[in-house]
Amino acid sequence: MFGGLYELQGYKNPVLVSSMDGVGTKLKLAVTMDSLSSAGIDIVNHSVNDILTCGAAPLFFLDYIAMGKLIPEKVRDIVKGVSSACQAVGCSLIGGETAEMPGLYSGDDFDLVGTIVGIVEKDKIINGQSILAGDVVLGLPSSGLHTNGYSLARKVLGESKDRLEKKYTQLGQTLGEALLTPHRCYYKELYPVLHLIKGLAHITGGGFPGNISRILPQNVSAVIDTGTWDVPPIFSLIQNQGEIDKEEMYRVFNMGIGMVIIASAENASMLKKELPEAKQIGIIALRLDKDSVILK
Amino acid sequence: MFGGLYELQGYKNPVLVSSMDGVGTKLKLAVTMDSLSSAGIDIVNHSVNDILTCGAAPLFFLDYIAMGKLIPEKVRDIVKGVSSACQAVGCSLIGGETAEMPGLYSGDDFDLVGTIVGIVEKDKIINGQSILAGDVVLGLPSSGLHTNGYSLARKVLGESKDRLEKKYTQLGQTLGEALLTPHRCYYKELYPVLHLIKGLAHITGGGFPGNISRILPQNVSAVIDTGTWDVPPIFSLIQNQGEIDKEEMYRVFNMGIGMVIIASAENASMLKKELPEAKQIGIIALRLDKDSVILK
Repeated sequence: MFGGLYELQGYKNPVLVSSMDGVGTKLKLAVTMDSLSSAGIDIVNHSVNDILTCGAAPLFFLDYIAMGKLIPEKVRDIVKGVSSACQAVGCSLIGGETAEMPGLYSGDDFDLVGTIVGIVEKDKIINGQSILAGDVVLGLPSSGLHTNGYSLARKVLGESKDRLEKKYTQLGQTLGEALLTPHRCYYKELYPVLHLIKGLAHITGGGFPGNISRILPQNVSAVIDTGTWDVPPIFSLIQNQGEIDKEEMYRVFNMGIGMVIIASAENASMLKKELPEAKQIGIIALRLDKDSVILK
Repeated sequence: MFGGLYELQGYKNPVLVSSMDGVGTKLKLAVTMDSLSSAGIDIVNHSVNDILTCGAAPLFFLDYIAMGKLIPEKVRDIVKGVSSACQAVGCSLIGGETAEMPGLYSGDDFDLVGTIVGIVEKDKIINGQSILAGDVVLGLPSSGLHTNGYSLARKVLGESKDRLEKKYTQLGQTLGEALLTPHRCYYKELYPVLHLIKGLAHITGGGFPGNISRILPQNVSAVIDTGTWDVPPIFSLIQNQGEIDKEEMYRVFNMGIGMVIIASAENASMLKKELPEAKQIGIIALRLDKDSVILK
């Protein structure tokens, strides 16, 4: 469907930054637990964080919801989540499409896809190219798995309603609650301090190595000390039950750190004051071997 | 996945125009006939036409392909179609996502969603508000069903491989060939003559009434003379086999007219010279009753 119009005003050298994505198999859990509004929040927050890594502010969002048979209440719940998450960051929800695809989606299944378009002034683009040895790596906590690793999590922990409704002592909540916690959005806290930041990595599919390596210049590595933060119990539960090795865990999951920030030592101190939850989780060093992300 | 960056240069009062859509159940036929590249062309051309109705030129495109199990050759075929159709209109394919969703999509099924972002100068936006009684309605031929009405077409004509491979004398081709003809793109012919045009309606879901009514001021109606063009045989086949009444046909299908143009009588003459395929299919009249689109 035709989306919408958005007038650009007051930019000197505007660069549009866009991202299109789904929420992956977290959707299956949201369907099982009838938590559709949270899926709407997930897709927006995931997208806002993605373009924030370039320094971009969100302008507008479009969503696509496809079901076997459109059920208005379900669509309304999803859009409620999309809409509230957009509102929270001042992003216009300017369009979308609800598609009825009998024979493609069965039962309660649906797919939810979102596109965000944001903007950054050309001279404010964050791309990591000024990162140097001696810079500091900070981490901001995630709220849970965000939107990655659900295929593995479902395989290890199960995905039946019974399983998801089971309360785990170490989680302090049910498995479903832990797994469906909405993706945290970092825009409001990070946008005002972007001028202090050299590089941002949103820890999504590909985990630490996949996402941090993309923003590093070729001559440096990020050395991450995995002992500097407490890994939330949901990740330990998955790791123990699935007997998954540490390397795979950090490649699939965010392990409690949803956004990685790289800044000069001086700016990192200022950032820690501005962002009380930010923790130093590593340093930037001259690259000695092929690995650009070293987990210790 | 993170999409891409697009620098805007040389615009005075740029307005971004966006659209996000799928190709609907035409996909099912494309899967049956292994015609994935044409599905890629469909989604791009559909999107380009959608934003063209505002006068917008395409800037960039993002695609989302979801399958139960990602099959690289299939993804490649789809992207080949997307990419060639983008190239044909000078649109950058700046990003996309391929999602593996086991348990959501079964067998060969997949979904394909596209987002286009285009641009128009604010004072060049086409919105139909200057349309007056006495203006002329022109139509440009469609190449087939484009991307609408496939649920009904499949129901009426069947969708098995055997059915689709059957050659029909009146079509001069197989049913599958007729149904899978790619969506025609009107950008290249219409963009140079947009200054002559007051309103554009892309005949998609909702057919003639749904799409033309959206662009008309409240005091006028479009009176369409359905005898002014030859309805292509694929539509007659559906109508006859399904015993569908005329009104429903024009509400579901484009009936051979993919783009409707409204212009002053003077400009309409010029347009007919510039666009040899354009035919006058109606006029704009003062509105006398509640219907803004009257089919005669």
